[in-house]
Amino acid sequence: MKKIVSLGEVMLRLSPPSSQRFFQAHQLDLEFGGSEANVGAALAFWGHHVIHLTAFPDHEIGLAAAANLRRCGIDTSFIQFTEGRIGVYFLEQGAMQRSSKIIYDRADSVFTKVDSSKFNWDSILKDADALHWSGITPALSQECADFTLRALEEANKRNITVFGDLNYRSNLWNYGKKPHEMMPELMAFTNVMIAGTRDFNNCLDENYGGFEAAKSDLFKKFKNLKYIANTKRESLSSSHNRISAKIYSHDQTFSSKEYDLPQIVDRVGTGDAFAGGLIHGLLTHDPMQAIEFGMAAGALKHSVPGDVLLCSEAEIQELVVGESIGKIKR
Amino acid sequence: MKKIVSLGEVMLRLSPPSSQRFFQAHQLDLEFGGSEANVGAALAFWGHHVIHLTAFPDHEIGLAAAANLRRCGIDTSFIQFTEGRIGVYFLEQGAMQRSSKIIYDRADSVFTKVDSSKFNWDSILKDADALHWSGITPALSQECADFTLRALEEANKRNITVFGDLNYRSNLWNYGKKPHEMMPELMAFTNVMIAGTRDFNNCLDENYGGFEAAKSDLFKKFKNLKYIANTKRESLSSSHNRISAKIYSHDQTFSSKEYDLPQIVDRVGTGDAFAGGLIHGLLTHDPMQAIEFGMAAGALKHSVPGDVLLCSEAEIQELVVGESIGKIKR
Amino acid sequence: MKKIVSLGEVMLRLSPPSSQRFFQAHQLDLEFGGSEANVGAALAFWGHHVIHLTAFPDHEIGLAAAANLRRCGIDTSFIQFTEGRIGVYFLEQGAMQRSSKIIYDRADSVFTKVDSSKFNWDSILKDADALHWSGITPALSQECADFTLRALEEANKRNITVFGDLNYRSNLWNYGKKPHEMMPELMAFTNVMIAGTRDFNNCLDENYGGFEAAKSDLFKKFKNLKYIANTKRESLSSSHNRISAKIYSHDQTFSSKEYDLPQIVDRVGTGDAFAGGLIHGLLTHDPMQAIEFGMAAGALKHSVPGDVLLCSEAEIQELVVGESIGKIKR
Amino acid sequence: MKKIVSLGEVMLRLSPPSSQRFFQAHQLDLEFGGSEANVGAALAFWGHHVIHLTAFPDHEIGLAAAANLRRCGIDTSFIQFTEGRIGVYFLEQGAMQRSSKIIYDRADSVFTKVDSSKFNWDSILKDADALHWSGITPALSQECADFTLRALEEANKRNITVFGDLNYRSNLWNYGKKPHEMMPELMAFTNVMIAGTRDFNNCLDENYGGFEAAKSDLFKKFKNLKYIANTKRESLSSSHNRISAKIYSHDQTFSSKEYDLPQIVDRVGTGDAFAGGLIHGLLTHDPMQAIEFGMAAGALKHSVPGDVLLCSEAEIQELVVGESIGKIKR
Amino acid sequence: MKKIVSLGEVMLRLSPPSSQRFFQAHQLDLEFGGSEANVGAALAFWGHHVIHLTAFPDHEIGLAAAANLRRCGIDTSFIQFTEGRIGVYFLEQGAMQRSSKIIYDRADSVFTKVDSSKFNWDSILKDADALHWSGITPALSQECADFTLRALEEANKRNITVFGDLNYRSNLWNYGKKPHEMMPELMAFTNVMIAGTRDFNNCLDENYGGFEAAKSDLFKKFKNLKYIANTKRESLSSSHNRISAKIYSHDQTFSSKEYDLPQIVDRVGTGDAFAGGLIHGLLTHDPMQAIEFGMAAGALKHSVPGDVLLCSEAEIQELVVGESIGKIKR
Amino acid sequence: MKKIVSLGEVMLRLSPPSSQRFFQAHQLDLEFGGSEANVGAALAFWGHHVIHLTAFPDHEIGLAAAANLRRCGIDTSFIQFTEGRIGVYFLEQGAMQRSSKIIYDRADSVFTKVDSSKFNWDSILKDADALHWSGITPALSQECADFTLRALEEANKRNITVFGDLNYRSNLWNYGKKPHEMMPELMAFTNVMIAGTRDFNNCLDENYGGFEAAKSDLFKKFKNLKYIANTKRESLSSSHNRISAKIYSHDQTFSSKEYDLPQIVDRVGTGDAFAGGLIHGLLTHDPMQAIEFGMAAGALKHSVPGDVLLCSEAEIQELVVGESIGKIKR
Repeated sequence: MKKIVSLGEVMLRLSPPSSQRFFQAHQLDLEFGGSEANVGAALAFWGHHVIHLTAFPDHEIGLAAAANLRRCGIDTSFIQFTEGRIGVYFLEQGAMQRSSKIIYDRADSVFTKVDSSKFNWDSILKDADALHWSGITPALSQECADFTLRALEEANKRNITVFGDLNYRSNLWNYGKKPHEMMPELMAFTNVMIAGTRDFNNCLDENYGGFEAAKSDLFKKFKNLKYIANTKRESLSSSHNRISAKIYSHDQTFSSKEYDLPQIVDRVGTGDAFAGGLIHGLLTHDPMQAIEFGMAAGALKHSVPGDVLLCSEAEIQELVVGESIGKIKR
Repeated sequence: MKKIVSLGEVMLRLSPPSSQRFFQAHQLDLEFGGSEANVGAALAFWGHHVIHLTAFPDHEIGLAAAANLRRCGIDTSFIQFTEGRIGVYFLEQGAMQRSSKIIYDRADSVFTKVDSSKFNWDSILKDADALHWSGITPALSQECADFTLRALEEANKRNITVFGDLNYRSNLWNYGKKPHEMMPELMAFTNVMIAGTRDFNNCLDENYGGFEAAKSDLFKKFKNLKYIANTKRESLSSSHNRISAKIYSHDQTFSSKEYDLPQIVDRVGTGDAFAGGLIHGLLTHDPMQAIEFGMAAGALKHSVPGDVLLCSEAEIQELVVGESIGKIKR
Repeated sequence: MKKIVSLGEVMLRLSPPSSQRFFQAHQLDLEFGGSEANVGAALAFWGHHVIHLTAFPDHEIGLAAAANLRRCGIDTSFIQFTEGRIGVYFLEQGAMQRSSKIIYDRADSVFTKVDSSKFNWDSILKDADALHWSGITPALSQECADFTLRALEEANKRNITVFGDLNYRSNLWNYGKKPHEMMPELMAFTNVMIAGTRDFNNCLDENYGGFEAAKSDLFKKFKNLKYIANTKRESLSSSHNRISAKIYSHDQTFSSKEYDLPQIVDRVGTGDAFAGGLIHGLLTHDPMQAIEFGMAAGALKHSVPGDVLLCSEAEIQELVVGESIGKIKR
Repeated sequence: MKKIVSLGEVMLRLSPPSSQRFFQAHQLDLEFGGSEANVGAALAFWGHHVIHLTAFPDHEIGLAAAANLRRCGIDTSFIQFTEGRIGVYFLEQGAMQRSSKIIYDRADSVFTKVDSSKFNWDSILKDADALHWSGITPALSQECADFTLRALEEANKRNITVFGDLNYRSNLWNYGKKPHEMMPELMAFTNVMIAGTRDFNNCLDENYGGFEAAKSDLFKKFKNLKYIANTKRESLSSSHNRISAKIYSHDQTFSSKEYDLPQIVDRVGTGDAFAGGLIHGLLTHDPMQAIEFGMAAGALKHSVPGDVLLCSEAEIQELVVGESIGKIKR
Repeated sequence: MKKIVSLGEVMLRLSPPSSQRFFQAHQLDLEFGGSEANVGAALAFWGHHVIHLTAFPDHEIGLAAAANLRRCGIDTSFIQFTEGRIGVYFLEQGAMQRSSKIIYDRADSVFTKVDSSKFNWDSILKDADALHWSGITPALSQECADFTLRALEEANKRNITVFGDLNYRSNLWNYGKKPHEMMPELMAFTNVMIAGTRDFNNCLDENYGGFEAAKSDLFKKFKNLKYIANTKRESLSSSHNRISAKIYSHDQTFSSKEYDLPQIVDRVGTGDAFAGGLIHGLLTHDPMQAIEFGMAAGALKHSVPGDVLLCSEAEIQELVVGESIGKIKR
Repeated sequence: MKKIVSLGEVMLRLSPPSSQRFFQAHQLDLEFGGSEANVGAALAFWGHHVIHLTAFPDHEIGLAAAANLRRCGIDTSFIQFTEGRIGVYFLEQGAMQRSSKIIYDRADSVFTKVDSSKFNWDSILKDADALHWSGITPALSQECADFTLRALEEANKRNITVFGDLNYRSNLWNYGKKPHEMMPELMAFTNVMIAGTRDFNNCLDENYGGFEAAKSDLFKKFKNLKYIANTKRESLSSSHNRISAKIYSHDQTFSSKEYDLPQIVDRVGTGDAFAGGLIHGLLTHDPMQAIEFGMAAGALKHSVPGDVLLCSEAEIQELVVGESIGKIKR
């Protein structure tokens, strides 16, 4: 069992059931989700001690959000509760050639006003093995960017391995800062990055022609960087994808199997499941096993409704080795 | 058939089913509602031509909100669609001694930025018989206050009867103005007010000792004022209320029957149903019939889930005369 | 265990859930029900051998209707399956002061074309103890009237006790015959009638001033008549009724307890539950026990969703003696 | 924005959820649908002014049916409300090798008694750009055939483009007339026909060997005919189809892309979505764009539950150009 | 119509809806199922007289279990009701690469204590054409093994054809006996066996190298044996299988078509549907038709939720001949 | 914030929705509950550190059970996971005169085999303020009785206040011991008992004529005893109860208000809510406040579906003082 700290916004996820469009919905399925907490939940489900740092409103729905993280096994002791609103995302699941659609309603959530000075960093990071952040957080507000930076500095001071999913999203970064004004400093603290060429170009304001070019430059630029992982996804339709992943050290490349994924149940959170699996693999095994475990976790997430993976280590391991796929386990 | 114009915010209403608390909800019932549109929907259901003025985001949920008004029979031709968010209210239905709980998440909705100059007032108010506003709108933002004022001025110019439900709510009025800085001007344009002593005291910054005192002062102060109506509600529990209503002209009082209401299904929108019934009654009959019709409409709304009354004129009339209550109609 | 034959139409019952109005329904609860089959289902649930005679369409929904009777324990061996439609009734459950509403869509159902000559009366009535009919059947079509008459003649030939629930409904009888042209002949074969003054007046084209007058005339007119039972219902609202019942022999009267019934779950089929209980009581005990058992069965039905009672003999008996009401039975 | 008039029956659609068979259903999903109104709803969703002409019962479910059309954006001002029943269709969704099954219960609906003389044709057709009918309507009753003929005559008088989906169904046409006694007259008024060889053979009592033969004869016979469109569907299973379409003018052929459609959500209404898209394309663009837009609309409908398309013009256009298929749109 | 007797445990089946994992379920779909009763239900649905022998607790859920069999058309007259518990199985439906998972909770159910001496074998087996058992029953308890043996002896005495699905399950057989101590005796009474090499090896404590070797030895060993049938299943994932089947007489082999089955709805009970179809085919037609009918029944079951087939003989026959697959039947 | 340790079985609770009977259920609502954990959950919801000691099976449903406790705020670190089954209780909610019905299926659960020697008592009880047990646990098995005794001895050694809800249930105690062979020893360690005359008579094998007699004898017999609390419940029906409570010290009596409770939502767990409130009150205030807080908590639980109270301290306090009952809180 490792100790891992994750940080990021957790939103109320509201989603029409049974392939309905927003226009025809009369009920919405209620879940809670957020990229970094999804990673944390996967890790907690496998038995790690995961502390998630976030902020919720001090009303009933904020309490329910925290309870939901606790249910997944996450340590919620350090969450901030203040007056305000919870970020919301409305998710319309796609089907066939019809795309999934997310309407974000997250502006001015209490998380965007998170106060990094109020966290007890000594308690939080004591004996921690890893910290996980994503590029979504610094994109939300100056407070969120400061919070990320502080967390990374504190982790760095204590020699805690830092994982970062760059996850560039063009419709965020509305508070004034540009990605390249904030991200390089955060990347400098990061030991394992999950990212593709587009992320690198946007975060560093570069114009790399391809992943190879980006990769070798990155390993030069960032001395703390040990691994870069990225995933490849072919979207035949909302219901049918193909995915695979690679992880690169300074001088080696490890490739996962490719998974063919027709009949997708829920595509949201599959990247987070991959990230969780990768962290688990790197903390407990080697890069080859990590990339296979991560990709199998990512593949399995497509079959689970909601934001969170909820698959056991044994189930994922079975997929890695290709055992008893599609059987009824009794 | 009369033509009536109503104005006000319509929110997304999200509510746990089956007496559940927020903490335990996994699905939320989705409806749309707002005090003034609820009034409009009741009137449209009875065959009147009702135009509702509001603003929605130009995304799928905004379109669904407008579609829902149209379904209720409301003319949605003049609604503004702009970029932004829709106001939301989370409703936990109470039961027994446990109170209902509303968490508002309506700040910065597109409605708070409504642009009154973009409405085609000539078309909207052409041949209109009545306009209905409530004290919620001017409490939301300066734009909303301006919008209300403009609507009342335009109505006044055209000799359209103005109905206003003062509906003072202490947790609104956060944009800088105080009620008494805005409401008196609006009240001056209003011919029929629905309000109680607390509303008058807050809106006028007065300290009336009781309703009688308020009433006589009001009729003096506001020369356009023809009627004041108010309701009395005794809350034995969330599941059991008793209600009655009165309407006052300058020199007369008309009282409705009292309704005993155990086994309440949905208490939200009952005041709006009363207001709708009152407007219908005054536009088509006399004050005595109006107060009875309004109160019966308000009583029946307690039995209908959602924000909107959805009862026919005949059903309400049957309750007024006390016919076939509790029978199975075949 | 007795053998009882019932006859009558079984309809598809479609009903909006959770106190919704038709206008707002997006799903309908599906059940099957019909007055006489409801009586039969209650009796089958208590262990009697009940044969129900009816007709269904020979399509999937007709098969489902028969399966549902079988599930309740009814012997469906003699049901006719022919091409055509199933009768439907749309039920909107009332609440509080809002009435329940039934929209019938039963015209031209296969039952209205039932062919009484195709039933094997010898097999059906062999060793039968009782036959139950209601005044709904002869009101539906000439074929249905003929079918009822034939069943009663066949039962009479074999000295089987005939129970009839007169159940006059003004919106039926549309096929040409008037009640008094058909009902007296059927009543003449009937040993136990469930009816009130209004039923008698309509079925006999009489104008009895009250129940006493009707009753004594009835016992004179119909020599086979042994008992008349009737129920009294006070409808305070759709959610709150009070009921009691009496049974009269030629010279005696037996009265049940009165039940106060707030918080009604489903009012439909409560009269049928009473009839079932009464038949059970008269077949196995005496009139006093029969009227108490019947009324307790009728009272309990108010707490069970759907058309059918689904309460055991022991549960009803407990209510008769007033034991452990409202306890949790573990 | 164009003005389009459609006419036809709208039925109550009742369907077991979650791949259930009728035999096991305990709830039915409630929708409203009908071929021509589905076409109208697609067009209204894209911003056109669509008037739908139909008849509903004057009870609560009839009102709900009209409200549902209004929700979709259809102008319901000219709908007739009379006493009677609403047509019903029970739909069991197929899956895999199991076929979908529809049980119609539409005989004697109020629509079959529609009174064409009561429509205000001048108001309805004023400034209309197009009228859409289908071969289902004249198949239902003499009144419906007369209604269709009258509508086409009135449209023809005013030079309104007439679209007709021949849609021959062998289990209709039960009121005495044969298709070839009615359809040729209606086809003579029609400018754009959607039909295949089988439709032509049945409607004209011909025996064309193939589509080419039919097509050239049709263009000769019907002087008003400008375009014939037809679709090709390969049904691998209830869950997997392949579709494409062509449109023919007198001397040209335009072919759409073929769409492979595994994991079908709802196959009903896909032809209507195609028709709607085709009408939109022909009214606003050219035949090539029309056939691609129509087929993309038809393909997308397979992913949307219910009878109605509910996809925006932009979504369909994206599929036409093959952009961002299967992505999550944020 | 044939008369068939089946015997075996029927369990309460509890299953999270909509691809949910146990961890996230808040409701469970309730069904009843058991291998042999599933076979019986398929046969009853096709019009055969099927008696199922089992035991249920004498409480409300036991009654519901019997009612459910009756609904499917099974004769439940001979079921034993005693004090105790009902066996339960919790089923988590798999999806994509995620396996289905069954948690059994069947120990000490009343069925494991079934008293074979209390069945009236003369009545039960009078004029019976066939008896069906499976290898699950003798694996449950000594009482169950005795019960199976007794049933087979009684059937054998009366020259009733005995069908047996060996169905070896390694996690049963916990009461002391080993399969080979019990099964050979039961197999000796069996005329038609459904089994594969693994079943034979375990039941006979043999080590056959392959099916051919097993088969020829079996026909030598068991003089009553007329046919062996077995199925082949390729599991590409939980959502995609391929299946086919063969039946062998002493000297002939009959092979079914292969079915490709993507988009699986419910895989449970597909072997039972096959067995039911095979029995039907052998009782009413020849081995070639039996193996095709059986496999088509098994294939169709994948599209029906629940344990039971619920497809008509005509539907299966259509799949056998490949007619109208994937069409909408109107 | 206090630290409290509770111990006892947590079962899977399965319950038909919407007032359905078991006989008609097709879905069951899934919750987890158990008397002592319900008490613990109430205390955790108010911010106390609650450790619950129990045992769950090491399968997915066992994990879900623990997750659910964690969601409620309970510390699940010390729960034992072993192979076996989870106890189940099937709950049919009563309505009106129809009783609620519980079918227990808890025999041989892993909790009945709990191994008290494997708990780390030092960690568990370190700095604990209170321990809560109930009479259900020693009634389940010898292991459970030993476990309770051990817990009480350990608590006693550390001067931790012991609360015990005697909760005698006649249908338990099946493992050989009689209550009076076990309970007196446990009661001797208990400082606060919740019990009535019937509990005392059964647990002590006494025959007290009334509560007064029992009480004075108890205070004499058990030197550790500081308070006895009991509740009085009048069951007018399943939907309408009246409750009140008293707490007695050696020489004082404190009485709560009486609550009238029509329209009950869920009666299960109301005694546990009372116990939780009482413990909270005694640990943080005085007996008078404790009895009022406990009874208000118990009253409010009737309005919340499920086993657990889920009401905040502030909500309960508002009911104690009678503030804003039945209002909508915005």
